Amino acid sequence: MKARIKVTLKPGVLDPQGKAIQNALGALGFDGVNDVRQGKYIEVDVAGMSEEQARTEVERMCRDLLANTVIENYTYELAP
Amino acid sequence: MKARIKVTLKPGVLDPQGKAIQNALGALGFDGVNDVRQGKYIEVDVAGMSEEQARTEVERMCRDLLANTVIENYTYELAP
Repeated sequence: MKARIKVTLKPGVLDPQGKAIQNALGALGFDGVNDVRQGKYIEVDVAGMSEEQARTEVERMCRDLLANTVIENYTYELAP
Repeated sequence: MKARIKVTLKPGVLDPQGKAIQNALGALGFDGVNDVRQGKYIEVDVAGMSEEQARTEVERMCRDLLANTVIENYTYELAP
């Protein structure tokens, strides 16, 4: 089973990487870019567990390691 | 309009960050983790263009800046 996890900064948290990308896009001539936010996309391949167990494990992985829940949000999808 | 872009390493390309996460998960007692791959998740807020124009712009952003197409793949969704 594969978990597809997105970790993003909470709204209001300064995103210097996003700002850097936005400036670079502007310098390359891309107009109309209002905002850019960068986060992490993590794919975790888990084996030998039911979907429910996988959901519990992935939730714990996000809280314990993959996301800093003080400043980041996480969402995930499970795919067989 | 918001573009949700995922940039991931191509299969076969070594992913040291993914390996580091996998080792850390193991050290935290998470069993059954076969593989971990880490990529970038970027949200770009574009204004003043049709969906078709946005698609063309986002495609160009990915090729010109956001992804290193030699070793990375990119996918994106457009949401109003």
